[in-house]
Amino acid sequence: MASDFHIYDTTLRDGAQQEGMNLSVADKLQIAALLDRLGVDFIEGGWPGAIPKDTEFFERVAKEVTLENATLAAFGSTRKAGGRAATDTQVRALLAAETPVVTLVAKSDIRHVERALRTTPAENLAMIRDTVEFLVREGRRVFLDAEHFFDGYRFDSAYAVECARTAAEAGAEVVVLCDTNGGMLPPWVAEIVADVRDRVGARLGAHCHNDTGCAVANTLAAVQAGVTHAQGTVNGYGERTGNADLTAIIPNLALKWGGISCTIPTVRLADLTQVAHAISEVTNIAPFARQPYVGASAFAHKAGLHASAIRVDPDLYQQIDPVLVGNDRRMLVSEMAGRASVELKGKELGFDLAGLSDVLTRVTDKVKALEADGYTYDAADASFELLLRGELPCGRPEYFRVESWRAISETQAGAAVPRGAAPAGARGAVPGRDLTASEATVKLWAGDRRLVATGEGNGPVNALDAALRLALTAIYPELEQIELVDYKVRILDSARGTDAVTRVMIESTDAAGVWRTVGVGTNIIEASWEALTEAFTYGLLRAGATPRGGGSV
Amino acid sequence: MASDFHIYDTTLRDGAQQEGMNLSVADKLQIAALLDRLGVDFIEGGWPGAIPKDTEFFERVAKEVTLENATLAAFGSTRKAGGRAATDTQVRALLAAETPVVTLVAKSDIRHVERALRTTPAENLAMIRDTVEFLVREGRRVFLDAEHFFDGYRFDSAYAVECARTAAEAGAEVVVLCDTNGGMLPPWVAEIVADVRDRVGARLGAHCHNDTGCAVANTLAAVQAGVTHAQGTVNGYGERTGNADLTAIIPNLALKWGGISCTIPTVRLADLTQVAHAISEVTNIAPFARQPYVGASAFAHKAGLHASAIRVDPDLYQQIDPVLVGNDRRMLVSEMAGRASVELKGKELGFDLAGLSDVLTRVTDKVKALEADGYTYDAADASFELLLRGELPCGRPEYFRVESWRAISETQAGAAVPRGAAPAGARGAVPGRDLTASEATVKLWAGDRRLVATGEGNGPVNALDAALRLALTAIYPELEQIELVDYKVRILDSARGTDAVTRVMIESTDAAGVWRTVGVGTNIIEASWEALTEAFTYGLLRAGATPRGGGSV
Repeated sequence: MASDFHIYDTTLRDGAQQEGMNLSVADKLQIAALLDRLGVDFIEGGWPGAIPKDTEFFERVAKEVTLENATLAAFGSTRKAGGRAATDTQVRALLAAETPVVTLVAKSDIRHVERALRTTPAENLAMIRDTVEFLVREGRRVFLDAEHFFDGYRFDSAYAVECARTAAEAGAEVVVLCDTNGGMLPPWVAEIVADVRDRVGARLGAHCHNDTGCAVANTLAAVQAGVTHAQGTVNGYGERTGNADLTAIIPNLALKWGGISCTIPTVRLADLTQVAHAISEVTNIAPFARQPYVGASAFAHKAGLHASAIRVDPDLYQQIDPVLVGNDRRMLVSEMAGRASVELKGKELGFDLAGLSDVLTRVTDKVKALEADGYTYDAADASFELLLRGELPCGRPEYFRVESWRAISETQAGAAVPRGAAPAGARGAVPGRDLTASEATVKLWAGDRRLVATGEGNGPVNALDAALRLALTAIYPELEQIELVDYKVRILDSARGTDAVTRVMIESTDAAGVWRTVGVGTNIIEASWEALTEAFTYGLLRAGATPRGGGSV
Repeated sequence: MASDFHIYDTTLRDGAQQEGMNLSVADKLQIAALLDRLGVDFIEGGWPGAIPKDTEFFERVAKEVTLENATLAAFGSTRKAGGRAATDTQVRALLAAETPVVTLVAKSDIRHVERALRTTPAENLAMIRDTVEFLVREGRRVFLDAEHFFDGYRFDSAYAVECARTAAEAGAEVVVLCDTNGGMLPPWVAEIVADVRDRVGARLGAHCHNDTGCAVANTLAAVQAGVTHAQGTVNGYGERTGNADLTAIIPNLALKWGGISCTIPTVRLADLTQVAHAISEVTNIAPFARQPYVGASAFAHKAGLHASAIRVDPDLYQQIDPVLVGNDRRMLVSEMAGRASVELKGKELGFDLAGLSDVLTRVTDKVKALEADGYTYDAADASFELLLRGELPCGRPEYFRVESWRAISETQAGAAVPRGAAPAGARGAVPGRDLTASEATVKLWAGDRRLVATGEGNGPVNALDAALRLALTAIYPELEQIELVDYKVRILDSARGTDAVTRVMIESTDAAGVWRTVGVGTNIIEASWEALTEAFTYGLLRAGATPRGGGSV
């Protein structure tokens, strides 16, 4: 643990309030291990007693997760009004969680005391004093989250500060000033923290929400004004607009504000991207590509203007070296790209195009022409590599040639779903509507061998996928490892109604990684077919499959 | 236009640099109209001369979009080193765009001048001076984007300030300090702006990127230090982590920083959420639920701790009233919210549901169940009205019943497009690839009359559209007025690969207006068919057609 600065993670408690997030105890244990690997100082695990899953989490985490860096904190509220801390059920549950730290939430906005808690200002202070003193006597380190502190201070600063001072005097080690509604701006935070710092005898912390888009900056403003304990969540998870994003706060503090007395010796900055992504795998919330530092696009460059200069001196065009936070610099190939981006992209894919001026010209021209037709290569590396190989001596591998394909979708006669009785699990089956089915037939050649297969599916593309697999797996068993995991459709020029041009992007995986392909056509099935066959071709290439009887084109 | 503060939007230029964004000219025209409706002061439309689509945009925007609030700006760079502004091809293209404002990008970091531009510091200053003076003489208002200004200032402040001063002296109305690499933190921005403000005789602007997660706060810090021109993009679109998000900056300035000399009289704040969402429909980039102010979750409260208090006094638990920015407070897990919005929506469509408690309950339950399956009624008023009518005494009109349909897509034997010779105008026809065709057959009933027709088309949905028209037009000539003008596909739950659930939205028009319908299914053709038949049904209802032999269901 860092002695002079606290990184306090509340992903498992406040982050779990996010809309659509539903973590099992096993999920929480996994996330705790990842947070410890990243090297945060404190992990707030949940609210034992109030949430049964959180009670179970604290029982299991001690046995099942070995924490090397982090100290566990249990979260709960001060005792009930008119009661005693020692006999308060909820306070007892906090003790029972047996964590070194207990973080208590308390009201500090007098309006909330009177209108939400419905008690007197004096009783609220007594609740803070009693509960902190009791837990300290029981051997706990106590942190106090002063809820709605900034709003409370702006309405009645004397009472807000009195709440903070009461906690400090009762033995709280940290008083955390919370922007619970997230409405603050950095100068307001700085001014309030500076005033409180001079009047409260405890370490101060900040807990911000992102409702003004300033949660990271508000936290930094608080640090600059004297706070030495920063709360937040990985990936900025949380209710409404989310909590302050630790994956931005940590590198900002570690790499940028060296001037501030703040060291985070335990944080493994180079693991930041990987941990952030691993946690989003557990939460099953799609990562935000534009997320600072760790996002997939965070170090991706598109403009042709910059690409030629990046080749000369990457530091001119990036805020930090992405390696520092475990991310990569990526070049996007697009219609704005020139030869320099194509050359850099080739390098990234393992092709040295530096001397091959004519190849660069041909590929750049081809990309521009295809993008004008609706293709896009900045998110379809695999299709770009196949295109590039087609212009190189190695050639584009030809695992199969297509003779023809056909896809039929139709209603199933006599298979109407009865009204009011959708079969369980039949997604998209609407009562009163006929069931539909799709069937596809493909005719292919691998060398001189003709392959014909028919597949069925939920829709025409699913059926084509099935038919293609059926036809090819016997000669290319590598296909069993390949799975299509994402399918996206974009209607270009959509104002032409159902006659519009369609672009399909497919993401595929094997045991080792992910690749993306693109297809375009006025016929959505044709566009999907193109992206599908590209996905299979690239997958076979990755797997090192040998083209049957064919070669390269 | 606000005289004392500029909101300058660069969604169409810098925003379009975002990974995966590929806007057609039609998309850009639509976005320009939406930005004008929101009330930004300036719209930067693109880089004429450098990007062919942008040249076309400026040609068409003058004729096709009536701007009520915004002034158009064309973006481009200073003249080439060693040349003359008056004969520089790129500078001439800026003039040819015929916009009132030209925004020039110029280097202001001496390292970029020497290493990327490969010219001398003096020549760079001459390029700024010549180009600004030339464009001012030609009657343009000139804004100068000082690229990499903050990084440049931190390395060699004298040269960076000299670039800004040169532009101001040559007649630039605004000098925009750019954090091109996005690495700044608010205190750094504030300090640098304060220094430059005292040394440069032009209005100052700020252009920030979000690489530290501080783009909004950096912009606000610049405003506090004296900047009166804020650049950004709607939804924070842009390269890497994106540009400063105007949808957060505008409400922060308008609702929070009243103390600062900054008024934005033309901005229609109450349209903010709707415009942000409409633009994300055009870009087809899924909206970010946690986005400040306009995100779907931005004012969503999870039931529990806060629920009862929110009912008593919502202001205790929200930073602002969401109505101010056109968003809604949502209680997750709350029936009341649903019934209220159904009632409101009904009112909007001309149905008074106030006394009809059982109808409200049934419609709310139905909408919830269908939305859980993937339907969305926010943008599909026509489908919602048909659903609502089905629960009212008037009933849902039945113009036809579907017996069955079938759609076939296949390659055309012997119709391969010869390599190197794509037929003119055949979009999506790729040399070397077989042509494909689609055919659809529909079997319908109108009263006791059976209608069977087969249509052909560019794709299966286009063919179904044709078949449906062919079958019905003889009895419903009103259909001749009805046209499908927009067709959108979104893959929900896309991680299930080609087996994913698909949502289709169709926009239709007649002489009098526009309506939108929705369809959902695991089969993309089935989802399209549903949206199509809804579109025809609603169109006939609008036209006052009499159901043949049928009535209502």
